[in-house]
Amino acid sequence: MAYENHVWRLMKRPVGDIADGDLIYGKEPVPELKDGEYLVEVIYLSLDPTNRIWMSDVEQYMPPVELGAIMRGLVAGRVVESKNSDVKVGELRAGRGGFAKYVVASTTAPMSPVPTLPSVPLSRVFGSLFLTGPTAYFGLLDIGAPKAGETLVVSAAAGAVGSVVCQIGKIKGCRVIGIAGAKDKCDWLVNELGIDGAINYKTENVAKRLDELCPNGIDINFEQVGGEIMEAVMARMNNFSRMPLCGMISGYNDKEQAPGPRAWPLILMHRIKVQGFIVMDYLPRFGEAGKQLAQWMMEGKLKTKVDVRQGLETAIDSLRDLYTGRNSGKLLVQVTAE
Amino acid sequence: MAYENHVWRLMKRPVGDIADGDLIYGKEPVPELKDGEYLVEVIYLSLDPTNRIWMSDVEQYMPPVELGAIMRGLVAGRVVESKNSDVKVGELRAGRGGFAKYVVASTTAPMSPVPTLPSVPLSRVFGSLFLTGPTAYFGLLDIGAPKAGETLVVSAAAGAVGSVVCQIGKIKGCRVIGIAGAKDKCDWLVNELGIDGAINYKTENVAKRLDELCPNGIDINFEQVGGEIMEAVMARMNNFSRMPLCGMISGYNDKEQAPGPRAWPLILMHRIKVQGFIVMDYLPRFGEAGKQLAQWMMEGKLKTKVDVRQGLETAIDSLRDLYTGRNSGKLLVQVTAE
Repeated sequence: MAYENHVWRLMKRPVGDIADGDLIYGKEPVPELKDGEYLVEVIYLSLDPTNRIWMSDVEQYMPPVELGAIMRGLVAGRVVESKNSDVKVGELRAGRGGFAKYVVASTTAPMSPVPTLPSVPLSRVFGSLFLTGPTAYFGLLDIGAPKAGETLVVSAAAGAVGSVVCQIGKIKGCRVIGIAGAKDKCDWLVNELGIDGAINYKTENVAKRLDELCPNGIDINFEQVGGEIMEAVMARMNNFSRMPLCGMISGYNDKEQAPGPRAWPLILMHRIKVQGFIVMDYLPRFGEAGKQLAQWMMEGKLKTKVDVRQGLETAIDSLRDLYTGRNSGKLLVQVTAE
Repeated sequence: MAYENHVWRLMKRPVGDIADGDLIYGKEPVPELKDGEYLVEVIYLSLDPTNRIWMSDVEQYMPPVELGAIMRGLVAGRVVESKNSDVKVGELRAGRGGFAKYVVASTTAPMSPVPTLPSVPLSRVFGSLFLTGPTAYFGLLDIGAPKAGETLVVSAAAGAVGSVVCQIGKIKGCRVIGIAGAKDKCDWLVNELGIDGAINYKTENVAKRLDELCPNGIDINFEQVGGEIMEAVMARMNNFSRMPLCGMISGYNDKEQAPGPRAWPLILMHRIKVQGFIVMDYLPRFGEAGKQLAQWMMEGKLKTKVDVRQGLETAIDSLRDLYTGRNSGKLLVQVTAE
């Protein structure tokens, strides 16, 4: 059977914000499957801050997307054709794919089985358990090493990763302070997720509010933003504090590379541990994270929000919303009905 | 018996380089000892990069020296009077003291016993085993976690700490590349200490030489300098590499705070661990380090150099040499004969 693909191809490397024409949307036939390959019809495409990094020819943790190629993206979907004896038609699979309606996977470029949970929709399993949950789980627990009574500050706290970090922090007995960019996000963090305080960086003085909300300083900074917010947090970090470096979204659309944090000498003075991580490094331990996150979800200790946009053709507009904070929870594009 | 002290007092906080008159040298009586106190006649005063930090009213790991107070310094000396039943006259003691001929210690501000080693002079026991050895030992082994076959780069490699780091790196099976500021220092590192390569940052292109000498990238950066040398090293650090942050001597005399490293995003992209440390944090484990270092020294695997200057009155001039690299090995001032 011949399938018609819908794809976004990267035609120009964006300079600053993504411009119209940097990626173009089109239709094309799916090539015939070779032995060992299988075809996944994408149900959800995940939109992630890291997408913007992949568009740039800068030093990064995997090669940038080549010009002319289908834009790389994380997807979940259903196998619709298989020339691989280990993979059956009808199975749900998730992993690295593209901004596309169909993705060709294989033994050398595999997609993982997606667990199913009673009464939890695929959008949430994929968006929270598969993608953003493990980022929060390993970054906070492995690098942040929270202890009960410590103060944890989370930037981009109402985001898909940040909101899970906040809740794991509460489960571990930390005082949790979130930083977000809207009053309704801050209200949600405090009233729905039960964290100890939230700062609206668009209307409040972050430094002053951190002083008020973190009277014992900061033991863990789960850093996703960079820039002036990071400076304010770093300036208040305690001796022997930890800083899992998960992202620096504030700089991803910069045209010129920003200087490093002025607070750098404090890493020495306060014996801070700053450690970058990429969730894919933890792939062999995803099972552990998924099991624990699912249990917390079932127990009602872990709430997640997904923001599902309709139609692959809206993907780039939706992606732009991620960098301006106009999303509410894990951003997914629904490409095909579940 | 009344003792006459000779002391350096901090009168003005230096702006940039230490100026004449920032500290003044004078003589004054030693106050009568109180119960529990003991008086140590200083034999060696240690001159350390951190001395400059202590003179400035900047955020640091202990309070800066107060204006008018005797300049803080690490010293080794002999007990000449004691009103403390645990401390006998004639014992050797070392620890936090001052730029002074006599230091009053007590149970609450104690000085540690100094081990003696057969045929190793006090200057070397104090300068290498007591002070700089543990810095190298814990920074490299605890934070750097070297594995055989990895590439270790050491800045300020010919210095008191750096030269020990280089040799422990070789003992652990690393490829060791040192960066220093003079040809004779580089020659000493390669020919006497047996490291794999050395770069003279004053005459060579550090980035180009790192490319040549580190064909497999850099797994550990033992960082003591900061600035452009650090940028060049960080730009070549591998995935999952480690960076014990021991010091940033290139900036200690700056009048304005420098921006952080431009290479900051690489901490995320390459999952680098950057961790500051202060050797005093490891005080409970100094015995472990001293024992191992002494054993390596006895086995001829660990060579150390001390640069002993004569006379407390020369201390500030000698200290200035530390920031311009005009010392050769651990810098000590001999205040009194051994």
